[in-house]
Amino acid sequence: MKADWIAVDWGTTHLRAFAMGPEGLRAEAASDAGMASLSRDGFEPALIRLIASWLGPGVTPVLACGMVGSRQGWFEAPYRSVPCTPLEQGALVRVPVRDPRITLQIAPGLKQSAPADVMRGEETQIAGALTLHPGFDGVICLPGTHSKWARISAGEVVGFQTFLTGEMFALLADHSVLRHGLADGWDEPAFDAGLAEGRNRPERLLAQLFRLRAEGLIATLPGAAARSRLSGLLIGAELAAARAWWLGLPVLLIGSDRLTALYARALSAEAADTRALSATDCTIAGLALAAGALSKAAE
Amino acid sequence: MKADWIAVDWGTTHLRAFAMGPEGLRAEAASDAGMASLSRDGFEPALIRLIASWLGPGVTPVLACGMVGSRQGWFEAPYRSVPCTPLEQGALVRVPVRDPRITLQIAPGLKQSAPADVMRGEETQIAGALTLHPGFDGVICLPGTHSKWARISAGEVVGFQTFLTGEMFALLADHSVLRHGLADGWDEPAFDAGLAEGRNRPERLLAQLFRLRAEGLIATLPGAAARSRLSGLLIGAELAAARAWWLGLPVLLIGSDRLTALYARALSAEAADTRALSATDCTIAGLALAAGALSKAAE
Repeated sequence: MKADWIAVDWGTTHLRAFAMGPEGLRAEAASDAGMASLSRDGFEPALIRLIASWLGPGVTPVLACGMVGSRQGWFEAPYRSVPCTPLEQGALVRVPVRDPRITLQIAPGLKQSAPADVMRGEETQIAGALTLHPGFDGVICLPGTHSKWARISAGEVVGFQTFLTGEMFALLADHSVLRHGLADGWDEPAFDAGLAEGRNRPERLLAQLFRLRAEGLIATLPGAAARSRLSGLLIGAELAAARAWWLGLPVLLIGSDRLTALYARALSAEAADTRALSATDCTIAGLALAAGALSKAAE
Repeated sequence: MKADWIAVDWGTTHLRAFAMGPEGLRAEAASDAGMASLSRDGFEPALIRLIASWLGPGVTPVLACGMVGSRQGWFEAPYRSVPCTPLEQGALVRVPVRDPRITLQIAPGLKQSAPADVMRGEETQIAGALTLHPGFDGVICLPGTHSKWARISAGEVVGFQTFLTGEMFALLADHSVLRHGLADGWDEPAFDAGLAEGRNRPERLLAQLFRLRAEGLIATLPGAAARSRLSGLLIGAELAAARAWWLGLPVLLIGSDRLTALYARALSAEAADTRALSATDCTIAGLALAAGALSKAAE
């Protein structure tokens, strides 16, 4: 099996590659060779190891997005400034490679000057979502380590805002005093209670967090309930602060099934309309758009 | 130099001992043998190593407060429930020791059932503050890793609330994506800007935090300014959420010179009156109160 072209999603902690043909996805592969684990010289070997079996006798175009294009990545693809289309023909940055079997282009991220904000990788998912939902006007939410909310109008990202929600969860669960009281497992009522508390009193987050610890000590809050409530508290605080983004607008959610389901449920009472898309589908669709533009340019 | 009795402040990461005579403090010593670094059998040797030179031919009473009395500490001193005096004669827990030269008593912490909250060590500082300011009626704030706000009336702790402020700062500065953009140094205007932002929009904390990173990337926010603003954001969010505690009341601040000065400045515009006390002075005064009760009991 050879690829006509290869889509690559290359983040801080992961590397995922997709072998593409005219009919769509042919194969996929992944490794933990994320940006953070590689020196500058390590990117090309890590990529070739993953995709070598897909390379034919000719030259295979590789299109990548994510932190691979950051200053600490393989090759810096300077941010484009919003308002702008999420991904534009000709905007991808051509990266010199040693292996003659591939060419490589990296999608640039987006930046916003006031309030300052940046994204890398999500712009490609947004572009993909807009090919899957042409003419979409509303807000796109990409929950995750750094959750993004982007206002979309007339095919452009008008503005966006990032929340440290997922990273905060990991910091608290892995490194804080709360870790002593958390356990795996899912407790839906505890999540809902946390969500309500976080949404209603987001300004009390620093106190709500310590209360989780105190309830574990003196009220024997079970570890799974504490973990689920922590998740609810943080997502609730994000939704409260992002209210101006989603209120009364249709919301497209892009992410893992699990996270988009949580956000959809939390938003369903108040957002005009929510729909969820898979992050992988959107990444591939976004890079396919750029690849299509490439092949048109080659015609 | 021998001690009549010994005051011990034993927290998660530190052990501090004070040799006391009738005239007050005679000597002090410290080590990093905090609770977290010790197994149950390690406490007594760690204490004796630090205080051996102060022990005379008789039996020297040792009075300790802090996490040493937690379930993970040397010996559990069960929480007392508020409302109650911060530290009470007869409430200290006698701990069996092997060394015949000392007796050991540990001050119990305080708990509050709704909203759930706990303190260990701060109750002793509060007791000390009340001996230094008899009849104080207002709120005592103890900024730090887990900042505490306690309402004091008629010599009792009526209620209290803990904020994860200091620990959150350490988590973000040491473990989060923000660490790449922080540097040592103090930038007062940046702290003030963060303080105002945190106080005015505490519900936006998760977004304000990511903005620090984005400004570092695209607006070249200097590292010292980013670190100072982070400190301001978190303290501002705490003050906003603690507003019901301090509004219009006199505030006694107990902590390091640096932290109490920051909180005093932040509160001065709105709290009725703020005064700062050294945490060490308060700890010693609190344990001295208990020691005085002991010696009266021995008469």
